[in-house]
Amino acid sequence: MSVAAIKYDSGVSRWEPNARGRLERAAMDLYVERGFEQTTVAEIASRAGLTERTFFRYFSDKREVLFYGAASLQELLVTTVTDAPAGTSPISAVAGAIEIAGALFQERRDGSRTRQAVIEANAELKERELIKLAALAAAMAEALRGRGVKDPIASLAAEAGIAVLKISFEEWVSLSGDDDLPLRMRAAFADLRAVTAG
Amino acid sequence: MSVAAIKYDSGVSRWEPNARGRLERAAMDLYVERGFEQTTVAEIASRAGLTERTFFRYFSDKREVLFYGAASLQELLVTTVTDAPAGTSPISAVAGAIEIAGALFQERRDGSRTRQAVIEANAELKERELIKLAALAAAMAEALRGRGVKDPIASLAAEAGIAVLKISFEEWVSLSGDDDLPLRMRAAFADLRAVTAG
Repeated sequence: MSVAAIKYDSGVSRWEPNARGRLERAAMDLYVERGFEQTTVAEIASRAGLTERTFFRYFSDKREVLFYGAASLQELLVTTVTDAPAGTSPISAVAGAIEIAGALFQERRDGSRTRQAVIEANAELKERELIKLAALAAAMAEALRGRGVKDPIASLAAEAGIAVLKISFEEWVSLSGDDDLPLRMRAAFADLRAVTAG
Repeated sequence: MSVAAIKYDSGVSRWEPNARGRLERAAMDLYVERGFEQTTVAEIASRAGLTERTFFRYFSDKREVLFYGAASLQELLVTTVTDAPAGTSPISAVAGAIEIAGALFQERRDGSRTRQAVIEANAELKERELIKLAALAAAMAEALRGRGVKDPIASLAAEAGIAVLKISFEEWVSLSGDDDLPLRMRAAFADLRAVTAG
């Protein structure tokens, strides 16, 4: 065994190319194959050809593999709402943000579908997802108030956006074809306008 | 000590007048005084002048004291949506249900405020509340589908109703006066219509 191999096997190596991506893929594969509950961090690390120590450099636990993207999604939504041109209506600012998020999910269609299947199969993960969605609504409402929008308008616009995100995403993810998510979201905003008008 | 007193003290007595109400009031008082986490079932029972065994005849744990009403609230919403006259629009059926719920919360204004304060003070209880609200939205969407309303309209109308419920309730509960909750909800549905119209 070469010195290099020993260093690698003992986990001393500080840098692994794309360790986060490898761990994420390994985790998703195992969650689908065995179920989320039955999968251990040791198994994820082993499948990725990495050590547990490396896993914990990127994720605090096996649940975080599914939810670490929420922080950057929230930042994206908040930034898009905040940076909308002056005079943009609250619902247009929110719709712009939601459709950009939709384009992002669509770029990662396979990953989005796999993640959704894992979450749908586990009550605790479904609850965690609801909590993340509520946090996204609260963050967008705050961004709208930062633009001078008063409550309850700010909260209503933000909650409307999250309802569209949730409902459109769930429909889209269940379809096998290459349905366009941002377009589906735009249609859902129009549906919501018609629905609330009675 | 009389035989009757012995029977009472040893908890053999099978029937206690309004035991559920006494336990609920004792629990709320203690949650406000000491915090939810610091309160034990033994303390709740003792404050109510009842035994722990009696507590567990009514509630599975101390959290359920706060959430046992969710089942009858869900039934109320579902029944109201289902029983709306033929030809009622989805959003009107939902608004009717939400305003009836609002009238109910208003009848118990003090209890509603106390419960909200307890929930707001505890992250786990706030998460539980979000999960219950999501379940109410899903149940109303199902009731709308039972009336022949297709998705995404059914889901959008139901989510819109829960957004109005949540936002109106949070505003109302923070006010000290005798603001009318069903009227506030009606105004929020009108606001939502204006918001989604841009």
